[in-house]
Amino acid sequence: MSFGTVAILGPGLIGGSLALALAERGLAKRLVIYARKDTSFPAIKEKLPQAILTTDVVEAVHDADIVVLCVPIETMKGLVEQFADSLKPTALVTDVGSVKESVDREIAPLLADKALWIGSHPMAGSEKSGFTAARSDLLNGATVILTPTEDTPLPARQRAEQFWKELVLTGPVVIVRPKQHDVKVAQISHLPHLLAAILVSYVQYADSEALELVGGGFRDTTRIASGSPELWTEILSTNAPAIAYELKEFIKKLEFFRDLLENPQTPNVLKESLLKELKEAQEVRSKLPEKYTKTS
Amino acid sequence: MSFGTVAILGPGLIGGSLALALAERGLAKRLVIYARKDTSFPAIKEKLPQAILTTDVVEAVHDADIVVLCVPIETMKGLVEQFADSLKPTALVTDVGSVKESVDREIAPLLADKALWIGSHPMAGSEKSGFTAARSDLLNGATVILTPTEDTPLPARQRAEQFWKELVLTGPVVIVRPKQHDVKVAQISHLPHLLAAILVSYVQYADSEALELVGGGFRDTTRIASGSPELWTEILSTNAPAIAYELKEFIKKLEFFRDLLENPQTPNVLKESLLKELKEAQEVRSKLPEKYTKTS
Repeated sequence: MSFGTVAILGPGLIGGSLALALAERGLAKRLVIYARKDTSFPAIKEKLPQAILTTDVVEAVHDADIVVLCVPIETMKGLVEQFADSLKPTALVTDVGSVKESVDREIAPLLADKALWIGSHPMAGSEKSGFTAARSDLLNGATVILTPTEDTPLPARQRAEQFWKELVLTGPVVIVRPKQHDVKVAQISHLPHLLAAILVSYVQYADSEALELVGGGFRDTTRIASGSPELWTEILSTNAPAIAYELKEFIKKLEFFRDLLENPQTPNVLKESLLKELKEAQEVRSKLPEKYTKTS
Repeated sequence: MSFGTVAILGPGLIGGSLALALAERGLAKRLVIYARKDTSFPAIKEKLPQAILTTDVVEAVHDADIVVLCVPIETMKGLVEQFADSLKPTALVTDVGSVKESVDREIAPLLADKALWIGSHPMAGSEKSGFTAARSDLLNGATVILTPTEDTPLPARQRAEQFWKELVLTGPVVIVRPKQHDVKVAQISHLPHLLAAILVSYVQYADSEALELVGGGFRDTTRIASGSPELWTEILSTNAPAIAYELKEFIKKLEFFRDLLENPQTPNVLKESLLKELKEAQEVRSKLPEKYTKTS
């Protein structure tokens, strides 16, 4: 299986891992890597001696059969504007962004009639970032969400499915509309990230000495709060409306338990509610798919 | 170093791990293990052939130099009442409970003039429970909090310190008043546990299909929600007032971000606030002590 010439735009954690996996598995006849600056090129050259490295995005894409946007969400539109006219009409363009509706709304019109476009979101990551954290097996077993719209031609979806299946191996490739994607990731990724970060700084302000005592539970719970602040500021602010809704609903649930915990008149109601909640959480969690390989 | 006859009351995850470590390191001349029922005895006998196993708590403690209460918090008082009169006056009694003020208030009077008493809380655990999950290295590197009061005789504190230092090896043994202990663990352990459990069931109700898509971040963040629901119901309800306060304050912080996320008029204020919060969380987290060994 070869996807021809594959251009990876942005060799960070995901883009770098993608490039390493493509090279290791011989999935690209030519591998082209674009970065805005050449500072990471020596490190990339060492691991990927065959790859063509360039800071010229038009050069990177003009011969590409597949183009993967792995740059920060807020820079995608500007980058696509630079290279849209240089694409082969048969090229497939996709991305790896964590937010999809706004990205699709911006990118799809720029590529209409110029190439095939579909949004993708591989659910893989790490609290580390940059090419130095990239690993050829980062995507193994991960779920990839494809976000076609009614305007997405079938070949775009088919080729993207084929591409990602070779990269995630056992991981599933699922189809979700962009808006619905943003709601789901607000629940399972963005809200948890925000909670973890707020919890860390909350405890720091409440009693910084308490942090000296933390056990493994606190470390696990807050691991994602070590992720790149800049990257996550973009993700969270881009998906603000969906996260606002989830946070509002989540706070209501917290208030229910706050009221029970505050009221010493009803110890049995408290115990029953806690037991029900904890049992349910344990049961739901025991059914989580095991396919994702922990990265740290 | 030998602590003489050590009686472990309750061979669950912590009690079992304690017994395994004491045996492996030859720290007890005699190791006595009490359980309410003998169902776990065959498994214990296999790993600890030298240990004396009994369902008679008076027999378990009457010759003991150190007695460690590793039973659920709500059963401690009843158990101590059964054996208090059978202790050697030089015996040291301690516990491993996650809540300290109420335990101390109940246990200290029962042991006054009968033995030495001090509360202990080793900050180790796992989402698994029972003797089958016990490991001789579970406590390695863990922090132990001792919670003496003004009534605690110095020898109780000194012997407990000596005992735990042999068990946690590189882990620190720190002194915190019972009430202050309960506030700190509400922040770093109980609130995080509650949040993780509520997050899991929140997502389940919001969109159970979203759980099919989760990545490593959600798994890490919610790992503690797989802990024993019965054990955690006791812990959380015993420490209800302290947790209620922390939850109330935490909700205020969440509301601040909810309001920013909801208001599309202030994208820059949102970005600035998120970046500040995420940067601070990342920085604080990078300074967390590394001493605790992850157990899963």
